[in-house]
Amino acid sequence: MEPRALLESWRGRMGRELDAAIGFWVRHSHDPEHGGFFSCLGRDGSIYDDVKYVWLQGRQVWVYARLYRTVPRFRRPELLEAARAGGEFLLRCARVGPGSHKAAFALTRDGRPTKVQRSIFSECFCALGLDELGRAMGESRYRKDGSAVLENISEDGKELPGCLGRQQNPGHALEAGWFLLRYAQQQGDLALAAQAIEGFMVRPFQAGWDPEHGGLFAFQDVDGLCPTQLEWSMKLWWPHAEAMVAFLMAYAHSREPALLHLFDQVAEYAFKRFRDPEHGEWFGYLAQDGKVTLTIKGGPFKGCFHVPRALYMCEEILGQLLDEPLEQLPHQTTGADE
Amino acid sequence: MEPRALLESWRGRMGRELDAAIGFWVRHSHDPEHGGFFSCLGRDGSIYDDVKYVWLQGRQVWVYARLYRTVPRFRRPELLEAARAGGEFLLRCARVGPGSHKAAFALTRDGRPTKVQRSIFSECFCALGLDELGRAMGESRYRKDGSAVLENISEDGKELPGCLGRQQNPGHALEAGWFLLRYAQQQGDLALAAQAIEGFMVRPFQAGWDPEHGGLFAFQDVDGLCPTQLEWSMKLWWPHAEAMVAFLMAYAHSREPALLHLFDQVAEYAFKRFRDPEHGEWFGYLAQDGKVTLTIKGGPFKGCFHVPRALYMCEEILGQLLDEPLEQLPHQTTGADE
Repeated sequence: MEPRALLESWRGRMGRELDAAIGFWVRHSHDPEHGGFFSCLGRDGSIYDDVKYVWLQGRQVWVYARLYRTVPRFRRPELLEAARAGGEFLLRCARVGPGSHKAAFALTRDGRPTKVQRSIFSECFCALGLDELGRAMGESRYRKDGSAVLENISEDGKELPGCLGRQQNPGHALEAGWFLLRYAQQQGDLALAAQAIEGFMVRPFQAGWDPEHGGLFAFQDVDGLCPTQLEWSMKLWWPHAEAMVAFLMAYAHSREPALLHLFDQVAEYAFKRFRDPEHGEWFGYLAQDGKVTLTIKGGPFKGCFHVPRALYMCEEILGQLLDEPLEQLPHQTTGADE
Repeated sequence: MEPRALLESWRGRMGRELDAAIGFWVRHSHDPEHGGFFSCLGRDGSIYDDVKYVWLQGRQVWVYARLYRTVPRFRRPELLEAARAGGEFLLRCARVGPGSHKAAFALTRDGRPTKVQRSIFSECFCALGLDELGRAMGESRYRKDGSAVLENISEDGKELPGCLGRQQNPGHALEAGWFLLRYAQQQGDLALAAQAIEGFMVRPFQAGWDPEHGGLFAFQDVDGLCPTQLEWSMKLWWPHAEAMVAFLMAYAHSREPALLHLFDQVAEYAFKRFRDPEHGEWFGYLAQDGKVTLTIKGGPFKGCFHVPRALYMCEEILGQLLDEPLEQLPHQTTGADE
């Protein structure tokens, strides 16, 4: 397919899918009594647990506030109000104790801490969400600098010896790839940008793509040994969401048709296997052969974040590409049509 | 098959399998340089990581010392020496700091702590291993009372609300079942014994057995909702090892042929799907349909423990049953032949 026609088609699909995903979370995840969000939702949005995970509170605040601030059709007061209620819930309840700098990992529905982790991700996702909320509301009291978060995510686990040190996670590589590409663009560093695309996107994708059933493996071992993660051969939603963003951003940067083809390959897989046409949002967990093995829409690690963030970013990049004068897009096809 | 013939056949298979499992660990897991045991072994025994997990150090000490003390053909000096070297390694290196009561979760090969967990399982498995080592060596300096361990394992996770509270783990139920049956026998409490068999063995087994592919699910939700553990539908080695012990112990207690049939059902599945005829020991992780998905023989949670413990206990119970006068065994068949 012609690049322009392919981009047009994907822009429409991304927009409709983003509306469906946000609609799902708005309908099912809000807690009008205590503020904050439920994330343990079944396929149809039914709440199977009312625990509130701090990561996912911060992330949902981020998604709502960012959409409100930057996408005209989401500039709806109820979305900002839900983000504000989520932010207030975090400010009131996330800390392990009064004045503590430590945020809990999990809270009861009414905000009492039940689980604390050693890592700093809870604090990072709180800071990210509150920072974006501050931008959306034009208030500085929420804002903090969240720039360290992304590096901690992308470098997590690389310092340990043994099989942890050999562990490959195609999704984290691709995610780190688009973080790095964006940074390289801001710095005007073309060599770094090329390295981000080749080393963090194309090679991890090719190594991580299942040649038998399609989709990205959850974990691999660089030396080809058996990974120790039980779910290593499963297909998880978020690496595919990250890959969509990564390859579209890489294509927009270099206009290399092969990168558009890789975007199309992973997006077709994701839309075919993960999306739920019946209730909106995506399934999170497939067996190696693509069969849905967990029917939940949300849980301890899946909430209102990766899917809407990826759809929002893809829609935005597609819009920028399609708003350009026609001659800037190459007209040859990608040459690979599998 | 006649109960006696069935028991005879299984006694021979258990003994040969136990020899193969212990042979595997003796050949591949000992660290002559620092003491202690490697547990991250590939299918053929090759070491893919030299991290030393404290749980598995304590458990392997227990297995070696118990076999040395109670099974004549394992009364070999090199087995006791390996147990002693493992115990000394734990005494020297398991503590997080000098004089601390906290044991690390993972150590480097030479014994420096790299990971600490909040739970008390590391301390429990150290105490269990050293207690048994003390019995085997006739020395009191190793011995501590480890009786609290079993209760912590069987009750773990049951106090939390939400989906954790609804979580069912057929393997833990079956394991708790034989702990409880043994306690009931010691107390002479026949009602408690019957409850252990029915409530902790038969019902969890029937609820947890996969009617489509056979084998026990790793996790279930009592309300029939989708579990949140990614591996919920996988078949793990240790619940099957626990089920073999549980049903054979229950049969020896009640002489109910249906319990012998359940033992036969789960043992046939385990010997067919988990055992590795080529290198000894068992695979640990199968997909729902029974395909081996992780080829490792050991890792962070699988070591020299569940398989040899189950084979040792089954061989012992089978021997006791077969040593009885003939008329004590019922002669009818079980009536169910699937």
